[in-house]
Amino acid sequence: MNSFLRIGIAGLGTVGSATAKIIQEQADMLSHRCGKQIEITAVTARDKSKNRKIDLSGVKWLDRPMDLATDPNIDVVVEMIGGEDGVALELVRASLENGKHVVTANKAMLAHHGAELFALASENDKILAFEAAVAGGIPIIKAVREGLSANHFSAIYGILNGTCNYILTEMWQNGLDFETALQQAQDAGYAEADPSFDIDGVDASHKLALLTALAFTGDPDFDKLETEGLRSITALDIDYATELGYRIKLLGITQNTEHGVIQTVSPCMIPETASLASVEGSLNAVFVDGDQVGTTMYVGAGAGGSETGSAVVADIIDIARGHRWQHKPYVETTTYAPKEARTGKFYLRLMVNDVSGVMADVTAILRDHNVSLKSILQYGHSVEESVPLVLTTHETKECGIRDAIISLRKLDSVLTEPCLLRIELLD
Amino acid sequence: MNSFLRIGIAGLGTVGSATAKIIQEQADMLSHRCGKQIEITAVTARDKSKNRKIDLSGVKWLDRPMDLATDPNIDVVVEMIGGEDGVALELVRASLENGKHVVTANKAMLAHHGAELFALASENDKILAFEAAVAGGIPIIKAVREGLSANHFSAIYGILNGTCNYILTEMWQNGLDFETALQQAQDAGYAEADPSFDIDGVDASHKLALLTALAFTGDPDFDKLETEGLRSITALDIDYATELGYRIKLLGITQNTEHGVIQTVSPCMIPETASLASVEGSLNAVFVDGDQVGTTMYVGAGAGGSETGSAVVADIIDIARGHRWQHKPYVETTTYAPKEARTGKFYLRLMVNDVSGVMADVTAILRDHNVSLKSILQYGHSVEESVPLVLTTHETKECGIRDAIISLRKLDSVLTEPCLLRIELLD
Repeated sequence: MNSFLRIGIAGLGTVGSATAKIIQEQADMLSHRCGKQIEITAVTARDKSKNRKIDLSGVKWLDRPMDLATDPNIDVVVEMIGGEDGVALELVRASLENGKHVVTANKAMLAHHGAELFALASENDKILAFEAAVAGGIPIIKAVREGLSANHFSAIYGILNGTCNYILTEMWQNGLDFETALQQAQDAGYAEADPSFDIDGVDASHKLALLTALAFTGDPDFDKLETEGLRSITALDIDYATELGYRIKLLGITQNTEHGVIQTVSPCMIPETASLASVEGSLNAVFVDGDQVGTTMYVGAGAGGSETGSAVVADIIDIARGHRWQHKPYVETTTYAPKEARTGKFYLRLMVNDVSGVMADVTAILRDHNVSLKSILQYGHSVEESVPLVLTTHETKECGIRDAIISLRKLDSVLTEPCLLRIELLD
Repeated sequence: MNSFLRIGIAGLGTVGSATAKIIQEQADMLSHRCGKQIEITAVTARDKSKNRKIDLSGVKWLDRPMDLATDPNIDVVVEMIGGEDGVALELVRASLENGKHVVTANKAMLAHHGAELFALASENDKILAFEAAVAGGIPIIKAVREGLSANHFSAIYGILNGTCNYILTEMWQNGLDFETALQQAQDAGYAEADPSFDIDGVDASHKLALLTALAFTGDPDFDKLETEGLRSITALDIDYATELGYRIKLLGITQNTEHGVIQTVSPCMIPETASLASVEGSLNAVFVDGDQVGTTMYVGAGAGGSETGSAVVADIIDIARGHRWQHKPYVETTTYAPKEARTGKFYLRLMVNDVSGVMADVTAILRDHNVSLKSILQYGHSVEESVPLVLTTHETKECGIRDAIISLRKLDSVLTEPCLLRIELLD
């Protein structure tokens, strides 16, 4: 047994640097925990001169990430470049093919290319570890893959994007509108300059695809996901949610139903008494329903350098300890439910011209799409010559209400993009 | 590599039976997950004729648990007998000495003999796994040992006993007194006929000793634990807690302080807005503070057959996968803080004769022990000719207030056992 585990790190951004720092500063503790000396052998990064507050003097700087894949003095390649394709994907492929283990936080790459990469890792008898790709420092991948391995799962759901949760928390706590809360998230460093991956729900969907693969299907399939972001939510919706006794949270939900797997990321109304309602700010929280253990919940920081670095290093320690696992631990089903099988209760808020006949037009369209209304809340506080029209539905087919919205958009009296929120009556 | 992992189970009570049932009924899933066929080779149980709703027809029934330790056809002994010493301890010792892995849920045994048994397991290069010993089905041992292995820990704390949490929840929700709530817990199957291990905090202390070993000291040391149970809490204290904006929860807390490790199990007042305050009924919840990841939280069922069986089987799968770990992953310190180093804020409720001079006597005793009062709440609703005298303190030395209580008990005007609760201002 080699008493060293030699690490090559590609990318020294926030998480890459934090990972390097933990490995260097905690060398003694880490070697006690895994029985091996963990050593950073080589790194690559775009800017060699940047001050990262880590001492890399004894470490080899390689010119290109791909050099790590062929370096004979590297056992584990840590891919911290990011991006769905490109250099990251090439590096991971080449590293596995050359017999190196890979640790990555790259959810985009795995959501799109996970099937190929997991197969490649298995063929080469190497580990492709990705604890850091989902829910930051929370060891949720390990919990599902190992801690709950005696269970068939029925559902995994939760708050998977800290930026969205921060924005929704700010909107609720401080009455901010979406744009202001987003700006604040950007100023606080929670959101990127281009925030679309976060606020459009794409980042959460990447993570959900990985949880679906782990719990149900073996392979992630991003195209089988319904994704909706936060852009249509206004301060008004936050207020209505409060009046209805709800909170709005962006939830990722993957379920194994009688019709097949349903995976959705969307803003949901949940009861203000639900456990998830009190998960605030940039925290992440994941619920797992298992047939033996029941529901278990995991909460913690979903992002941040040292928080995510904690997960990267945990994967490295697993590899050093010799832990191995099947990349497809058990395939429960590969069937996805058709869109027609999806049902739910919904909240719908329209901004309409306050003219006579609007209500009749709207309710007729909903009736024609077999959407059964539970309540109509029209409070009439006027916003720039338009008034909100707020409805909630009974359990209804999702495709029905979505088709209805297409018709509603065409009405002259419907002024802005409708806001449709799923109502999830969680505990 | 042997493609079978052969299991011997000692004890077919609730958890032992559930474990056997999962292994038998989920054979296909489990073998996919670990790459081996998991097979129950032999069992022992006190009563062979009892109907456990599991089919053990092809399984060897041995006469004595110790026969499992010497059976050459067993790779892993699952110890489900229970008890701190006696047969369970002998079986685990002999099994490890004979080169078998051991999986156990026996927190009492490990809290008292863990140091010896972990050393024995390491000497024999075998795993002694105990996920099921702490917090039932929640994979908290794995989280601390593996998922958070990049972290130094500062504290682990939470609700570790479902019976106590059930009783306290019932007292709070339904205004029950302690005896009625306990009876109800017994009727519901949450508490044993002899409930003292639960309600005196001993069970939670066993679990806390294991978490302390894992996070800080390497070995559990039950004698270095302060344990207090629920017996002094009345419906009155629940009411006062509510008035003060608090909830009462039995908390296990282990901390690595500048003076050394402090581990206590005691009923605490926590803000009603704290995350732990909303963990109700028989649920368990554990918080872990790590230097990289910050605080992560784990919630789920703390007891029950299939819930705990889930953890037992997860350990078996780990062993089948070939996962190995150090039984003392890292010793942070072996120093325990002296009693004098412990400080805290406290709630103290006395039942006193409503005669003049009582308040002066009580406050004089507290002053003499350097206990600084924050508030005096005397609501005067009389209970059988006595009145409650309720105080809260500023941060004070715990030994001071405990010595004060010894003096207070001697006052003729103090009628029943004082109720002392720590106030923990958790988030």
